[in-house]
Amino acid sequence: MERVRQAMSAAGVDALLLSVGPDLPWLIGYQAMPMERLTMLVVRAGAAGDGSADLVIPAFEVPRVVDRPDVFSIRGWGETDDPVALVADLVGGASTVAIGDHTWSRFLVSLQQALPGADWLAGGTVTGPLRAVKEAAEVERLQAAASGVDRVATALQTGEIPLIGRTEAEVSAELSRRVLAEGHAKVNFAIVASGPNAASPHHHAGDRVIQPGEVVLCDFGGTTVEPEGQPGYCSDITRCVHTGPPPPEFAEAYGVLQEAQARAVDAAVVGAPAQSVDKVARDHLAQSDLDRWFLHRLGHGIGVEEHEDPYLVDGNDAPLEAGNAFSVEPGFYVEGRWGARVEDIVVATDDGPLALNRVTHDLMVVEA
Amino acid sequence: MERVRQAMSAAGVDALLLSVGPDLPWLIGYQAMPMERLTMLVVRAGAAGDGSADLVIPAFEVPRVVDRPDVFSIRGWGETDDPVALVADLVGGASTVAIGDHTWSRFLVSLQQALPGADWLAGGTVTGPLRAVKEAAEVERLQAAASGVDRVATALQTGEIPLIGRTEAEVSAELSRRVLAEGHAKVNFAIVASGPNAASPHHHAGDRVIQPGEVVLCDFGGTTVEPEGQPGYCSDITRCVHTGPPPPEFAEAYGVLQEAQARAVDAAVVGAPAQSVDKVARDHLAQSDLDRWFLHRLGHGIGVEEHEDPYLVDGNDAPLEAGNAFSVEPGFYVEGRWGARVEDIVVATDDGPLALNRVTHDLMVVEA
Repeated sequence: MERVRQAMSAAGVDALLLSVGPDLPWLIGYQAMPMERLTMLVVRAGAAGDGSADLVIPAFEVPRVVDRPDVFSIRGWGETDDPVALVADLVGGASTVAIGDHTWSRFLVSLQQALPGADWLAGGTVTGPLRAVKEAAEVERLQAAASGVDRVATALQTGEIPLIGRTEAEVSAELSRRVLAEGHAKVNFAIVASGPNAASPHHHAGDRVIQPGEVVLCDFGGTTVEPEGQPGYCSDITRCVHTGPPPPEFAEAYGVLQEAQARAVDAAVVGAPAQSVDKVARDHLAQSDLDRWFLHRLGHGIGVEEHEDPYLVDGNDAPLEAGNAFSVEPGFYVEGRWGARVEDIVVATDDGPLALNRVTHDLMVVEA
Repeated sequence: MERVRQAMSAAGVDALLLSVGPDLPWLIGYQAMPMERLTMLVVRAGAAGDGSADLVIPAFEVPRVVDRPDVFSIRGWGETDDPVALVADLVGGASTVAIGDHTWSRFLVSLQQALPGADWLAGGTVTGPLRAVKEAAEVERLQAAASGVDRVATALQTGEIPLIGRTEAEVSAELSRRVLAEGHAKVNFAIVASGPNAASPHHHAGDRVIQPGEVVLCDFGGTTVEPEGQPGYCSDITRCVHTGPPPPEFAEAYGVLQEAQARAVDAAVVGAPAQSVDKVARDHLAQSDLDRWFLHRLGHGIGVEEHEDPYLVDGNDAPLEAGNAFSVEPGFYVEGRWGARVEDIVVATDDGPLALNRVTHDLMVVEA
């Protein structure tokens, strides 16, 4: 909270309003329910410990809050009260207000009507740079999350999870069950894309039955179980397996991808511009004319949110900082034919890049 | 889409922008991924069929869209493009813009900077009243959803789902599995609140082991499985069971609650002000001094979203319309002691209120 107040002060922000989304659990360990009843933490600029933060919350949700009277006061509102008016009152004469990135627009529109003189910023301008630099305890949670999905990936790579003859949706459901069993409170996605479906980076696992002799791209992650009042941290891994020996053309392309991913990880050192890491992977793919099939950025930051700062993408020249945690996930996607992606979570440290995922990057051949 | 354009015209809205949340699947059957990459449908005012709607979407998500060239054009954007600038360009000189209720505030803040001359409204002012009046096919989907959770409630009421000696979380997980098995694509909540925990209306199912001789309040619902390109519809039901015979004081209070719920359903006729239905339940509870424990509104509309218009709450004097679908769910919550709630989904029709849930409202006594 102290760091947040410092960042508010540096950005000239008088009040920060946090509702649904990861900022609130990251800051006070409470997750707002995504609903029409407003929950909103009002943080006013000023010294820490002066009691100038208030949690506006439906009265009957109050029992779910782990009370932190040193950090915020609770302001329950009844079913016929107007929570927007309550927030506007708490904001008072603030002229620059930052609103949490995921806050529903209906609340922002109402707040703008209630505070016609205020200037509005995205809350991420305050919290994003703070959340992007992980403390040691946060890296530990990310490591635990990564180790959990590593065990699921191992089950995939060793053939413990059957593939041939099952639908993508069935395999996705099994991956989800295993992610939950490995210390996650929820599954955020479990992409299973087989054969030509692997050419769609965000393919929705469907009714297609997995065949012999094709690639199966699996990209899955979740949010860890933590004690009440503590935020969960995210995992995210992609591995490809092949049902039977791959065609030489695919194996060759995969080898180039694997090398591109490894080079990008090596390039993710403190001080390197984020976009330069993307370029390392893209340039290596270009040597085999594969870059034209690399349709997306190299990676995204990860923490209490699956996608957060920093983004490893052309145009982001911000240097990596020690404590940044992000995915490194180049891919190639040939429509109608096949696709592949290799993804690890990596932390930039003063001792160099630290990959949290440890299972092999090789294209493992599995049989039913 | 035609009704949306008419509503835009009536409200003086030049452009409607829909992103994450239920409006988009309701209108075009596509659900935007909640992420930092913007997906947004831009609907400009004007006659239907003139091609004046565009779906701005990350290029690599395009394969997931069920194409409807008669309804909207697809505008894929690449990883280094600026989607906000693209939306602003499509909005053009529009002076009044409605933004989908759940759209992330970070996008609204950016759009406001890109369109400094525009006035902004919540999108729900356009879509809310339309979504609140269900067509016959939508009532059918809600009925199917309700019948699904009715079968789960029956399993609870007959003792098929064991309770005593299990944790709330275990029972919640079983309810969730059964909701999925009954035609739902996802579970939206599965509250299990036992004994004194039943006094918290939104209790989070936890580690408490269910004991003999106490109330177990179960409130669960999900969103139905539908063909690709069709939105799912929501279910929501609450039933209480008692592990062994209830104490007379609780049984008596429950009987009053049951009667209050029945009277409110009977009062939910076309033309009745929404708040009057809430008052019917509250007044009946007041006769036994139970209204002081009825901490929340009577109910919420339901459709593609769990909570939507109309809300049955003091202060909402809008008359019920034929096709409105909503919950009727009075309760009482005595802190530290016990609580109860009875909830059905009801549709207002020209032939009177139609309750979609049909399982008994009685406080069923179950044994392990």
